[in-house]
Amino acid sequence: MIRLVIPGFRAAGGSAGIKPNQALDLALVVSDIPATAAAVFTQNAFAAAPVLYDRELLQGPEARVQAVLINAGNANACTGDPGMLAAQRMAQAAENALNLPPSSAFIMSTGVIGVPLPVEKIESALPHLVQRLREDGWEEAARAIMTTDTVPKIAVETLPAPLAPAVIGGIAKGAGMIHPNMATMLAVIATDIAISGEALNQALRQAVNASFNRITVDGDTSTNDTVVVLANGKVGNSPILTVDDPRFPLFVDALTRVSQTLAHMIVRDGEGATKFVTVRIRGAASDEDALRAAKAIANSPLCKTAFYGGDANWGRVLAAVGYSGAQVDPHRVNLWFAGGQEGQRGPALQVVAGGTPTSYSEEEASHIFAQPEIDVLVDLGLGEGEAEVWTCDLSHDYVTINGSYRT
Amino acid sequence: MIRLVIPGFRAAGGSAGIKPNQALDLALVVSDIPATAAAVFTQNAFAAAPVLYDRELLQGPEARVQAVLINAGNANACTGDPGMLAAQRMAQAAENALNLPPSSAFIMSTGVIGVPLPVEKIESALPHLVQRLREDGWEEAARAIMTTDTVPKIAVETLPAPLAPAVIGGIAKGAGMIHPNMATMLAVIATDIAISGEALNQALRQAVNASFNRITVDGDTSTNDTVVVLANGKVGNSPILTVDDPRFPLFVDALTRVSQTLAHMIVRDGEGATKFVTVRIRGAASDEDALRAAKAIANSPLCKTAFYGGDANWGRVLAAVGYSGAQVDPHRVNLWFAGGQEGQRGPALQVVAGGTPTSYSEEEASHIFAQPEIDVLVDLGLGEGEAEVWTCDLSHDYVTINGSYRT
Repeated sequence: MIRLVIPGFRAAGGSAGIKPNQALDLALVVSDIPATAAAVFTQNAFAAAPVLYDRELLQGPEARVQAVLINAGNANACTGDPGMLAAQRMAQAAENALNLPPSSAFIMSTGVIGVPLPVEKIESALPHLVQRLREDGWEEAARAIMTTDTVPKIAVETLPAPLAPAVIGGIAKGAGMIHPNMATMLAVIATDIAISGEALNQALRQAVNASFNRITVDGDTSTNDTVVVLANGKVGNSPILTVDDPRFPLFVDALTRVSQTLAHMIVRDGEGATKFVTVRIRGAASDEDALRAAKAIANSPLCKTAFYGGDANWGRVLAAVGYSGAQVDPHRVNLWFAGGQEGQRGPALQVVAGGTPTSYSEEEASHIFAQPEIDVLVDLGLGEGEAEVWTCDLSHDYVTINGSYRT
Repeated sequence: MIRLVIPGFRAAGGSAGIKPNQALDLALVVSDIPATAAAVFTQNAFAAAPVLYDRELLQGPEARVQAVLINAGNANACTGDPGMLAAQRMAQAAENALNLPPSSAFIMSTGVIGVPLPVEKIESALPHLVQRLREDGWEEAARAIMTTDTVPKIAVETLPAPLAPAVIGGIAKGAGMIHPNMATMLAVIATDIAISGEALNQALRQAVNASFNRITVDGDTSTNDTVVVLANGKVGNSPILTVDDPRFPLFVDALTRVSQTLAHMIVRDGEGATKFVTVRIRGAASDEDALRAAKAIANSPLCKTAFYGGDANWGRVLAAVGYSGAQVDPHRVNLWFAGGQEGQRGPALQVVAGGTPTSYSEEEASHIFAQPEIDVLVDLGLGEGEAEVWTCDLSHDYVTINGSYRT
């Protein structure tokens, strides 16, 4: 497990008794000083109470946040006006326990939908949680936000000169309901560089678009998805004020890498996942078309069960491309598979050329599909459009986990 | 099993050896006289060779077809130019065996994608199949087009006066890859009324829109989907020439009922299906919005695994509505569940009122979800838009079936 330390930030995880059996279910991240903040939220029309609260909190160009409080076990979604009051109380509880002024705390909830949030349990647990805050408390915090996740998710990058020795890192939870445009997916990312709210917001949007919005487990988008990034400026750089600052792309790169690492961890730990699948489209008429085709493959239950079963069923891949809505000329489509372990790949095997199967070796294809990681590369042969998305397979365990989530 | 007889039509099923072990894999439906024909096809860009052949065949306003030849076990899709030649030979083989002029035979294929069609096996099997043609051979034909279907699918309706005693009926296959806009789904429907090609085409589009395009098993749209309807005029009515004919709606109703019956049979026999689920949306801002919301629920893996697990997880239903793209005001949304056997329903239980859960009895909800048929009714409280779609649950068996389809 990565040891994450970001100057000026402390974190902790604990139990509020929202989950049964004293399981970890409450996490807190605190900055010593007010931090610039930016966030992206679920597009779901049933956005949960904490999402509505945070959107309001971050209105205005230069929001300053000093604490992020997260509970697992209850999503505080579809809970009506009492849910909004509970969200407010949750934020106030963090502010009170930390002696912070109003509007300093950002909140997140994840778990079951439609059950009133027992906010008094959070209020009671906070004083003890505050005492546990430590510079290296991120792993404990990452454990406390897990729902059906099986492993905590942590990532870190160091920033290059002239931003060195600044650090950017964070934690995330995922597992089910993962889909482009944010699905029950929470992430807290923090850095000690100084950057304006406007520039941080732009950076986050670019990073999320290339990471969390490119993963899918089951195509369901949740009510609670949130990614928040805090920048406290402790490293002492002169602030990055605009996207035109030459240091801005360096920061975006580091933020994107952290986001991609967390996003990949979410897919690897997808509910019931046994394979990590990278779908890459090139030669599309546009980037939008490439993304359509990639998402169609990544979301197809027939492709995903084939990945699970180790069946190199390229016909299902082409069929998904065919109904994706992307412009397609069947005679120009080429398809390759490659497989391997994390960080290494065997040679790519071309299975389709010009829309029809090559005389590839079925044995070789089966060998690729037996690997824990599979790459699917489709060249549509039409233009310069390209896209990459990451997904997992659809297994018996996915059905088991989701057939009885509440019971 | 329904005994289907349509005057002037004969049908048969047999084995061409495309499937192993002499399983039934070839079906033939023949009209004594040339019949008016109309068809709808997959929208998949990788439309299979038989689909391309049939589209050409039915060009022109008054296509006349006398035979429909269907093979299972091989989809003749993604098979390139050799696949197109094989499709032509398949049609010619039917015409030769039946002594019909060119362009009399409509063809369909279903099965594995990307394997050359062994058309010579079809050519060899046809003479024997022609000898087996019988007025009541429809069930045998229905059995011969099955792939992962577990039961043959047959439906029949009688037409009311002044079209009586005319009959309309047909066969279908479905099972996997079922999705609105036609997914590996074949249907042959026949009637002995006389109707113009233009009117028949309009009637078919209306019927399909209210039936086959409203079902989904897994959201995958196949390369081969086809519904064809033949009308041979044997009953002797003066032909229905236009959609303004007062008998046209009577015919559309009967065709829609046959199509819905077959569509429901396909969902009930969906791969691994253990539940039949009706999703009904009302109060939407538009019919299009209602359909978006209904399809989002019907295609959501999280909703479908909850149906499977018997978990009345209304939060997942609302979440699906929330990301469907339909206009939603969370405070106006009401949700009911009802359950029962085929053809009967218990009382509806309101679980959400104004976007938040009612104080419904969890026991009552569990009882509903334990039934073989579940209705999900959502009122969006915004307008007059409504839609109904039918789906099944997502079970362990779906994963088992599709994890190893080819092997």
